[in-house]
Amino acid sequence: MAKKYVYLFKEGNATMRNLLGGKGANLAEMTNLGLPVPQGFTVTTEACNKYYKDNETLSEDVLKQIDVALAKTEKITGKVFGSKENPLLVSVRSGARASMPGMMDTILNLGLNDEVVEGMAKLTNNPRVAYDSYRRFVMMFADVVMGVDKSKFEAIMDKLKQSKGVENDTDLTADDLKKLVKDYKALYKKELKSDFPQEPKAQLIEAVKAVFRSWNNPRAEVYRRMNDIPSEWGTAVNVQSMVFGNMGETSGTGVAFTRNPATGEKELFGEYLMNAQGEDVVSGVRTPSPISHLKEQNEKLYNEFVAVCNKLEKHYKDMQDMEFTIENGKLYMLQTRNGKRTATAALRIAIDLVKEGMLSKKEALLKIEPKSLDALLHPMFDADALKKAKEVATGLAASPGAACGQIALTPEKAKEMHKEGKKVVLVRSETSPEDIEGMAVALGVLTATGGMTSHAAVVARGMGTACVAGCKQLSVREEKKEISLAGKILKEGDYISIDGSTGKIYAEQIKTVEAQITGDFATIMSWADEVAKVKVRANADNERDAARALSLGATGIGLCRTEHMFFEANRIKAVREMIIATDAKAREKALNKILPMQKGDFVAMFKVMKGLPVTIRFLDPPLHEFLPHEEPEMRELAKELGKTYQEIKDVVDGLSEFNPMMGFRGCRLSIVMPEIAKMQTTAVIEAAIECVKKHKIEVHPEIMVPLIGDVKEFLYVKNIITTTADELIAKAGVDITYKVGTMIEIPRAAITSDEIAKEAQFFSFGTNDLTQMTYGFSRDDAGKFIGDYYDKRVLEYDPFVRIDEKGVGHLMKYTVQNARAVDKNFKCGICGEQGADPLSVEFAHKIGITYVSCSPFRVPIARLAAAQAAVKCGK
Amino acid sequence: MAKKYVYLFKEGNATMRNLLGGKGANLAEMTNLGLPVPQGFTVTTEACNKYYKDNETLSEDVLKQIDVALAKTEKITGKVFGSKENPLLVSVRSGARASMPGMMDTILNLGLNDEVVEGMAKLTNNPRVAYDSYRRFVMMFADVVMGVDKSKFEAIMDKLKQSKGVENDTDLTADDLKKLVKDYKALYKKELKSDFPQEPKAQLIEAVKAVFRSWNNPRAEVYRRMNDIPSEWGTAVNVQSMVFGNMGETSGTGVAFTRNPATGEKELFGEYLMNAQGEDVVSGVRTPSPISHLKEQNEKLYNEFVAVCNKLEKHYKDMQDMEFTIENGKLYMLQTRNGKRTATAALRIAIDLVKEGMLSKKEALLKIEPKSLDALLHPMFDADALKKAKEVATGLAASPGAACGQIALTPEKAKEMHKEGKKVVLVRSETSPEDIEGMAVALGVLTATGGMTSHAAVVARGMGTACVAGCKQLSVREEKKEISLAGKILKEGDYISIDGSTGKIYAEQIKTVEAQITGDFATIMSWADEVAKVKVRANADNERDAARALSLGATGIGLCRTEHMFFEANRIKAVREMIIATDAKAREKALNKILPMQKGDFVAMFKVMKGLPVTIRFLDPPLHEFLPHEEPEMRELAKELGKTYQEIKDVVDGLSEFNPMMGFRGCRLSIVMPEIAKMQTTAVIEAAIECVKKHKIEVHPEIMVPLIGDVKEFLYVKNIITTTADELIAKAGVDITYKVGTMIEIPRAAITSDEIAKEAQFFSFGTNDLTQMTYGFSRDDAGKFIGDYYDKRVLEYDPFVRIDEKGVGHLMKYTVQNARAVDKNFKCGICGEQGADPLSVEFAHKIGITYVSCSPFRVPIARLAAAQAAVKCGK
Repeated sequence: MAKKYVYLFKEGNATMRNLLGGKGANLAEMTNLGLPVPQGFTVTTEACNKYYKDNETLSEDVLKQIDVALAKTEKITGKVFGSKENPLLVSVRSGARASMPGMMDTILNLGLNDEVVEGMAKLTNNPRVAYDSYRRFVMMFADVVMGVDKSKFEAIMDKLKQSKGVENDTDLTADDLKKLVKDYKALYKKELKSDFPQEPKAQLIEAVKAVFRSWNNPRAEVYRRMNDIPSEWGTAVNVQSMVFGNMGETSGTGVAFTRNPATGEKELFGEYLMNAQGEDVVSGVRTPSPISHLKEQNEKLYNEFVAVCNKLEKHYKDMQDMEFTIENGKLYMLQTRNGKRTATAALRIAIDLVKEGMLSKKEALLKIEPKSLDALLHPMFDADALKKAKEVATGLAASPGAACGQIALTPEKAKEMHKEGKKVVLVRSETSPEDIEGMAVALGVLTATGGMTSHAAVVARGMGTACVAGCKQLSVREEKKEISLAGKILKEGDYISIDGSTGKIYAEQIKTVEAQITGDFATIMSWADEVAKVKVRANADNERDAARALSLGATGIGLCRTEHMFFEANRIKAVREMIIATDAKAREKALNKILPMQKGDFVAMFKVMKGLPVTIRFLDPPLHEFLPHEEPEMRELAKELGKTYQEIKDVVDGLSEFNPMMGFRGCRLSIVMPEIAKMQTTAVIEAAIECVKKHKIEVHPEIMVPLIGDVKEFLYVKNIITTTADELIAKAGVDITYKVGTMIEIPRAAITSDEIAKEAQFFSFGTNDLTQMTYGFSRDDAGKFIGDYYDKRVLEYDPFVRIDEKGVGHLMKYTVQNARAVDKNFKCGICGEQGADPLSVEFAHKIGITYVSCSPFRVPIARLAAAQAAVKCGK
Repeated sequence: MAKKYVYLFKEGNATMRNLLGGKGANLAEMTNLGLPVPQGFTVTTEACNKYYKDNETLSEDVLKQIDVALAKTEKITGKVFGSKENPLLVSVRSGARASMPGMMDTILNLGLNDEVVEGMAKLTNNPRVAYDSYRRFVMMFADVVMGVDKSKFEAIMDKLKQSKGVENDTDLTADDLKKLVKDYKALYKKELKSDFPQEPKAQLIEAVKAVFRSWNNPRAEVYRRMNDIPSEWGTAVNVQSMVFGNMGETSGTGVAFTRNPATGEKELFGEYLMNAQGEDVVSGVRTPSPISHLKEQNEKLYNEFVAVCNKLEKHYKDMQDMEFTIENGKLYMLQTRNGKRTATAALRIAIDLVKEGMLSKKEALLKIEPKSLDALLHPMFDADALKKAKEVATGLAASPGAACGQIALTPEKAKEMHKEGKKVVLVRSETSPEDIEGMAVALGVLTATGGMTSHAAVVARGMGTACVAGCKQLSVREEKKEISLAGKILKEGDYISIDGSTGKIYAEQIKTVEAQITGDFATIMSWADEVAKVKVRANADNERDAARALSLGATGIGLCRTEHMFFEANRIKAVREMIIATDAKAREKALNKILPMQKGDFVAMFKVMKGLPVTIRFLDPPLHEFLPHEEPEMRELAKELGKTYQEIKDVVDGLSEFNPMMGFRGCRLSIVMPEIAKMQTTAVIEAAIECVKKHKIEVHPEIMVPLIGDVKEFLYVKNIITTTADELIAKAGVDITYKVGTMIEIPRAAITSDEIAKEAQFFSFGTNDLTQMTYGFSRDDAGKFIGDYYDKRVLEYDPFVRIDEKGVGHLMKYTVQNARAVDKNFKCGICGEQGADPLSVEFAHKIGITYVSCSPFRVPIARLAAAQAAVKCGK
C-alpha cells in the first residue's frame, strides 16, 4: 500500500502530532470531540520532508492524495472547489510539531477566481465580502507564494482610499473592492509576467508548496535554533474550509485563553471583533472588544463558547489558546493549543489545575517551562517606576536582571564606593580578569565593546550580576571621569540603570525589586524536589554566591574555582611572585603568603554551607593569565619583585602558548609544581579543622583535580593531597573526612575512566572543556565558522549550551557506567554551563548523573528540569 | 603456599624471561642444557616490584627464600658462604626482561671479608688474586651499594702505583694489594662513618637491594624511555657463584659472538684475556686477543667452546653474544644472549639462518629490529672519505642522512643554485613555512636555533632531507652572506657537510653514497610483503617524494597535503588574494589562478604513481598560516592586491586565534567557503581526466576531507565534491572512479563513526590531531610539562611517536568496528606520524587497519613491522 501523506481531520487525533503537526492534530482531535470545526485535511510533515528530498517538488502520490482528500472535503462540507454556484474556499496554513507562531506562512480564501467570486457574491448576497476576500487572496498569494512585496499592493489600496477620501478599509464599497481586485491582478501580471492563476487546484498546489518552503525561511530557521527544534521535523500543511467572520454584524472572529496568560487567574481571557477576519484582530486597525462583552451581545453564543472552552481545557488538561470565528451567528473553532503564559501564570495555573483535580502534582510540574523561571530570579525594575523612566540607549542583554546604581569607571573606584555603602554600576570599555573584584561589588556591569561571550558577559552571568555589554552608543573617558551615552555626558557617581534582560539603559535612578522564592514558586519547587532524582548544586567561588545558591535551593557547591580567589588585588602580587619563582623554595615562599588568604575564603564558604558538600577545584588556568602582558606593567612587576624587566619578560614569553586550552594548565601545574597542590590542600584542610574545632560545624570538602587524562596524573596529585591532608588531620586530632576526585573533561579521561574510577572518589564532568576537545572546537574561536554552520544546517544547536548527547554524551554515559561498575553509588556530577539546560538535565537523569551544578540563579531552573526528567522517565 | 620469589638456576628455563629476566632465564636454560654454568639463583622481577611497593624494603618471605636458595647453592657448589676453609663467593647482577647493557649495577666477589680473604689466599695458593678480589669488592660495594664515588678509591690506587713506580695494576704485589684493602676500608669508614660490613649475608642483602634500586637510576630510566621498556617490568637479580679468570696463566675471561655482529658473516667473533676478570676486558687497560688465538693457545678448550657456541646458537636459533671465564683451565659460561648487531648484519644473519635451515622465513623476519633499517635508508658519507674529514661543530641530529653541498643562506639563493645544477645545503638561523621551497631543493638543512620539533626538523624529517638543527656554534649573517661556525667564517657558496644521523658538521666536501634496497635488504623486504596484512603507503606532497616512496615499496600515497603546494612563491600570492577576498566571487577569481597549478601537481603525481591509489587531503591549516604577520610584508601585500594596509591588517587580525588547533581549519574552511572544495575537486578530477585521456594511465584518486566531527559536516563537503566531480566526468565522457572519505582525527568523529561510515568511502586516522585532542595535549606547548611527566613517571612514552593504545587506540578500534559493520572491507588507514612505529604498526594489525602511511624513508621499516605483526599474531 502506498504511504499515506494526507489525512482528513476526522482521520487523525491528538497523538499524531509528529505526523500532522500541532495544529493538524488538534483540529483532528476537536473534530473527534464533536466540536464545530470547519472541515478539511492535513498534508503531513513526512510529505514536507519528501518535498525537500525530491528537490522541492510534490510527488505524484502526494498530489493524488490531495485530490482525493479535497473530493472528500467537498462531500463533507457539501460545497465544491471552483464551483460558481456553491464554492468551497479554503485556508492553507502551516502547522509544525512544535508551535512556531507567526514564523511560517498562511493563505486565506483560496479557491476564488474571477467566476467564483461572482458566485460567492450572489450566494452570500454580500458582494462586498466576496470582493474583499478576493482582493485579500490575490495579495496573499502574490506575497506568500510568488514573493511579490506586499507593500506594493498596500500602496494601491492607500491610493484608492485617498482618492475616495475614506480612512478605513471597511469604508470601501463593493465596487471599490472590485476595482481593487482588477488593479491587484494588473500589478500581479506586471510583476510576474503572467496572469493571476484562475485554476483553484493550481492555486492549492502552489500554496502547499509555498508553506513547505516557508519551513526554511530565515525567521523560521532562527526561531528553530532558539527553540531547539530540529529542521528534520518539517511542517505539515492544513487545508481547511473557510468560514467568514466578515459576513456582517452577526459574524465575527476572535482569540481567547481559558485562563489569564499573564497572571494565571481562572477567567476567560481574550478579545473578538465582529464583521472581521482573523488578520483584522491582529493588525490593530480596529480595536477588538474583550471576550466578556460577547455575553452581553449574544449570551447563547457566549455560553456555547464557554462550554467549548471548558470541554477543551478538561480534555487537554491545560490552559487553552483558541481561535474562533462566528459566521452568520454560528460558532466555529479554528484552532486550539496549549497557551503560552508568563512564568508567574505558569506557576499559578499548574497549582490551580492540581487543586481542581485536573492534574496530579507530577503532571502539573510538566506544565511549566523551566527556562521561563529565569524571569523570576533576578531583580526587576519596579513596574510603576519603569513606566516613568526614559530609555537612552541599548546594548546586548548579556546577563539578566535589572540594576540601578552610581557609575564607577574603575574596579578600584567601584570598591571604594561599595565600602562607602553606595550601590555601584561598573561602566568600562571592556573588562578583563583584573576587574573581577570591581565586578563582584557592582550590582551591574555595562561595557562598550564585546559580545555575548565577552569577559564581562561570561563573568557577570557566572556571578548572576546584571550586565549590558557592547553598547555602541557608549564611550568611556576614564581620564575625564565621565562617559558619553548616546551623546549625553554622565559623570562618575551619577546614577544609571541597566536591564540585563532587555539590554536597555536609563540615565536615571529606577527602583528595583528583589526576586524571592515564595508563594506559588516555593510550592512548585517543593513539589519538584519531591520527585527529582538528579540533585542540584551550584557553582560558587565566594561566600556571597554560596549564600545565594543556598537560598535558591542548592544542595551543595559543585564547583568552587579557586583561581578566582587569586585575582584579588592583595593576592595577585603573591601569585605573580609564585609564578616568577625560579625554584621550588621561592615558590613555596610566595605560596605561603597566599595560604592564609585562601584558608580564610574556605572558612567563610564552609560556614555558609553548614555541612553541605563543597567541591573545590584546584588551580586550573594557564599561568600567563595571572601575569601582565604590557611593558609598563611588566616593568612595575619587576620593580616590585626585585627582578629585571628581562627576567619578567622571559617568564611571560616562556608561558605564552600556541593552544593554551590544551597547554600548561590544570593538574599539569601541580605535577610540575607540587607545592601548589600542597598549599591548596593545606588551605582546605586547615579551614576545615578551624570550622570543626572553633565554629563547631560539619565540613565535607571534596577536592577536585582538574584536567586529568590518565590515572597516573591523578595518582600523582592525589598522593600530594592525601599525604598533606592526613598529616594535618592527624596533628589536629579531629575527625574530618574529605574526598579526592577528578574532573572528567578530557576525552581520554572518559575513555580510561575504568582505571580512574578505581582511584577517584567522585567524578565531575567539565562539559565545557569536554565539548571543546571532543568536537575540536575552540570556544573562543568558533565564532569564525559557527554562523555558517547554523546557516548550512551543519549544526542545529550550540553544544556549549546543550550537551551533545551523541558525542560528548556517549563519553559521559560510558564514564558513568565505568564508575558504577566500581561502586554503584559512585558520585558523578556535571559542572559545565550546560548543567541547568533542561534537555541536558533530562539527559543527566537518563544516564544516572548524581547532581548537576550551575550558577546560583539557575538552580531553580535545574531543580524543575530534574523533576520533569524524573516524571517523564516514569520514576 | 607462599609466592616463590627466588629460583635456583636449575628451577628455571628460557620461557621464564618475564619473571627471571633475560640473564636469569638464559642461565637457567644453559644449566638445563648441561652447559658449564657457575650455579646460583635468581631473585625475581616480582620481588623487585614488591621491593618498591614495600617502600624499598625486602620483605620477610623474600629474605627467607634467599637464605634457602643460598643454602642449596652451597650444597651444589660444595662451597660455603662466609667459610674461611672453602669459601663461596658470588656475583650479584641485575637482569631485566629486556637487555639494558651497562644500565644497572653489578657487584663481584661478594662474600669476602677480612677472614675469608685469608682463607681464599691459602686455598688458591694465590694471595695476590685473593687481595685483588677483595680490594675490587670493597670498592664496588662502596660505590654501588653505598654511593661513594669510585674515583676516590682510584685516587688511592694511583697514589700507590706512583709511590711504587709501577704502571699497571698487575705490577702490584699481594702485599701492595693487602695494603690497598686496608686503605680502602679506611676510606670507607671515613666516608660512611661505619666499618666495611664483614657479615657476608648482610653484604648480600644490601647488594640485592642496591641492584633493585639501580632499576630506577637516571640512566636506566632514560634507556627505558628510549627503548619503550615499561618501568613496571622491574629487574631480577642473579646471584651466581664466582669463578676466577685471574687465577694465573691457565685462567682467563672473554666475550664472543657466534657471528660477526657488524657484517653478519658466519665466523666466531670475539676476544679474551688470560689472567683477568671481566672488567679488565672491557676497561681497555690491557689489549685482549682475538678469539681465534685461543685455538693456538689451547685447542681442546677452544673446541669445547666452539661446541658450546654451536649448541647455544642452535638452541636459541639466533646469533649469540656470550661471556665466559676459564678458571684453572676449566671453561665456564657466564652468560648468553641474542647478540646486538648492525642492520646489515641483521639482514645477513636472518637470511643465513633460513639457508641453514635453522629458521623459517617468518621466524627470520622477527630477528630484525625494524627501526634499525633506518640506518640503511639515508645517504651516508663514504667511509674512507669520512676518515679524512674533520668535524668542526655539532648540533641536534634532527633528520637522518648525510648531505654535502654548497651553502645557501636564503631559500631564493638555494633555488637559484639548484637551478644551476649545484648541490645545496640551506643554512638558516631558523626556518619558517616560507622556506619550504628552499628546503625542498636542498640536500640538507642546518639551523642555529630550534629543537627536535622545530619547523626545520619536522619538515626535513617529512621530506627525508638531512637536517642538523639548533647548532649553538653557528651564527648566520645573512646581510654579509656568510656564517660563523665555531669561530670559522664560511661564505655563501662554500662547501659544507652535515650528518643528520649524528649531528656532526664538517666545513668541507665529503663524498656521500646513496641508500638502495638491494641484495639482502631486498630479499627480506620481499619476505615481509609476503606475510604482511597491513599495507604500507607513504605521505608525499610532490612527485619527487612520490617517486621515492614508490622505490621504497609504498603501495600508494596515503596522505598528500595539498596546502604544501600552496606555499610556492608563484602560488602564495594567489592564495593570499583568495584569503583577503571579501566575497565568494573574488575568492573564486583567486582560486581560478591556483587551479591550473594544483591540477599540474596532481597530473605529475598520478603519472608517478601509475594507477596506485593517491589520497588527497583538502586544505587543512588555519588560513593565517598563509599570511604575513609583520607590518612591512603586510604593506607589500596590500600594494600587490590593491588594498589598504588596514584592510590587510584587519584580515590578519581577524584570523588570529586563541587555540588555532581547534579553530577555523580543516573542513570548516570549505563549509564557510565552498569555493575552496570546488576548486580542489576540479583540480583533482581534471588531472585524472588528463591522465586517462592524454597519458593513458589509470588513476584512483581518493579525496579526503579533514577535521570532520559530525556526519553533517562530511555530507556538506561531500556534496560539493560529488556534484563538481560527476559533472566534470560526465562532460569528459571518461570512466573515472574516485572515492570520497574522511580523516578521523577529532574524538567526536570516532565516537560518531557509525553514522559517518554510512556516508564515507574510507577513513584515515589522523593520529597526530587525534592524540592532541584525546589527550588535550597541544603538541607545540607540551614541552612545558612533558619533561616533568617523564621524570615523575606520569608518562612512559611519547604518544605522538607511539599510538596510545588505551586512549587513542580505544577510539580507533571502535571506529574500525563501526566501519566494518557497514562494509567488511571498509578501508581504514593511518596517516599520522606514528604510522611507521613498529609497536603502532602491530596495534594497527591487531585492530584490522588496512594500511599505514608514513614518510617515504620509513616505508621499509613499516613493511617489516607489518610482517612481524602478522607473524606474531599467527597469520
